[in-house]
Amino acid sequence: MNRNNIILDCTLRDGGLVNNFNFSDEFVKNLYITNIKAGIDYMEFGYKADRDLFTGNEFGKWKYCNEDDLQNIVGSTSYKLKIAVMADVGRTNWERDICDKKDSVIDMIRIASYFDTLSEAIERIAYCKNKGYEVTFNLMSISILSKENIVNTLVQLKNSNVDVIYLVDSYGALYPHNFKDIINICNGILADSKISLGLHIHNNQQLAFANTLLGNQMGCEYLDVTIAGIGRGAGNCASELIISYINDNKYNVIPLIEFEKKYFNELNYKFNSFVNSIPYMITGFTNQHPRKAIDCINNKSFDFIKLVNKVENLN
Amino acid sequence: MNRNNIILDCTLRDGGLVNNFNFSDEFVKNLYITNIKAGIDYMEFGYKADRDLFTGNEFGKWKYCNEDDLQNIVGSTSYKLKIAVMADVGRTNWERDICDKKDSVIDMIRIASYFDTLSEAIERIAYCKNKGYEVTFNLMSISILSKENIVNTLVQLKNSNVDVIYLVDSYGALYPHNFKDIINICNGILADSKISLGLHIHNNQQLAFANTLLGNQMGCEYLDVTIAGIGRGAGNCASELIISYINDNKYNVIPLIEFEKKYFNELNYKFNSFVNSIPYMITGFTNQHPRKAIDCINNKSFDFIKLVNKVENLN
Repeated sequence: MNRNNIILDCTLRDGGLVNNFNFSDEFVKNLYITNIKAGIDYMEFGYKADRDLFTGNEFGKWKYCNEDDLQNIVGSTSYKLKIAVMADVGRTNWERDICDKKDSVIDMIRIASYFDTLSEAIERIAYCKNKGYEVTFNLMSISILSKENIVNTLVQLKNSNVDVIYLVDSYGALYPHNFKDIINICNGILADSKISLGLHIHNNQQLAFANTLLGNQMGCEYLDVTIAGIGRGAGNCASELIISYINDNKYNVIPLIEFEKKYFNELNYKFNSFVNSIPYMITGFTNQHPRKAIDCINNKSFDFIKLVNKVENLN
Repeated sequence: MNRNNIILDCTLRDGGLVNNFNFSDEFVKNLYITNIKAGIDYMEFGYKADRDLFTGNEFGKWKYCNEDDLQNIVGSTSYKLKIAVMADVGRTNWERDICDKKDSVIDMIRIASYFDTLSEAIERIAYCKNKGYEVTFNLMSISILSKENIVNTLVQLKNSNVDVIYLVDSYGALYPHNFKDIINICNGILADSKISLGLHIHNNQQLAFANTLLGNQMGCEYLDVTIAGIGRGAGNCASELIISYINDNKYNVIPLIEFEKKYFNELNYKFNSFVNSIPYMITGFTNQHPRKAIDCINNKSFDFIKLVNKVENLN
């Protein structure tokens, strides 16, 4: 395999699910500079959520990623670091909020969808491609999809002009041998296509890095990471682990570590801590959405037995 | 591969390195019952450390694993759960402290050694085998050994009557493809031998479970785990992850989770927390002993940059 390494930092987007996107501008600007220095390829700032659906003052600006807010951070200088935002199928006012690429600092729109909204997602891919953006399709919760439905998804998307298809292990439930099977199938379907594969893995079973590493070795080009692995639930693959693994001249782990030092307390106390790891491991290996684990922590009930409600055995 | 799964809980021994073996009897008794209920194969209680070398009141009883203290926990009832202790080459008074097996509740003695004390370890293996015990050789810090020295070790041990050879990733520095290479070599050397392979992996790069899982799939029979993954530095492979993965009638994850609920605060606050994960990741990927990370945490200096002192690149 001789494909590219393309690293996408989704700290603000996935971490924003923990703190309702209430990051300080200073944190965001520092992360942006850090990612530039580290050689990261893309930085995802947040969602393009529909303000008519998500009203009030609860959410910080990165829930919506207005053009002005983005430009306030990235300025007018052109860096290699590209800008991504996520748009959920069913939660986005596409016509109002996705302008032409020529009027935006955004480079890439990542369209997140479950399998059952695939047909709408395909329409939105075409819409965003026509506006001039790079576009990814992020297939969520793959651990509860049959192989047939993963194949169906790829076969349908192969006829679209999407740039990247992301496999998203939302539950952190898949083992490396599961990923090996799935990636082999996907590589087969996309062998004669320009579409790249991407991975976004959650760390419930402490496999986020291992599965991302495997994907990298199997030719998945787009790899999602977050600083220190923060993110919803058990978090994600840590930027510094994959960057230190790749260890080439393109990337530099030092700026990431400097950032972590500076924001150590903020990262540690506001985001997932070791306290959370036990319930998230359970929802991971029982193949359940992490919401029960989140409730468990929020309620300080720590009633882990209730979490053991096996939905599917993936061994 | 159709070899056995043999799970060894080293919570007290590896976790004891964090709290100087100051576990309450109630905690130890509960863990013992938990392991029996969970179907765990071996429980390692601690070290057979020489009291002439480790004097004073600093250490709890599991630093020494006196026969009386062990019997006080395990009683006279015979369970399937076997009892293991660790004996370090250079830190053990073998003649005084290792009695005949017939006078002990201990089933297995695990002899921990670095490569450079291999010849003494081989003498101690013979000594403990003659006393009637099952004996393992635990080769520490394999991430800084050349493949030649790993091969040398196995070739020499093949002529001993050791029961198990453990590969110990003390630094948590090896990637799955590193382990794949090493295990393939070891399997080749031991193909015509009754000696089993074992794995003890640290979690510095969040690969403890992934590497243990890989070893299991490649025929490594003896797998070390700790409850909730606690242990020195970044901790170990969590018992509940491997037990839930194997998922057969022999094992049951529920007692482990019940134990974790009961001792949640003790496990969380006394042992490695998320606070520790960043410095341990750094010492992991830079292939260094975790002592610098331990110092970093103990001193609350959080000067992570100082930790980036690359000794060896393992990619």
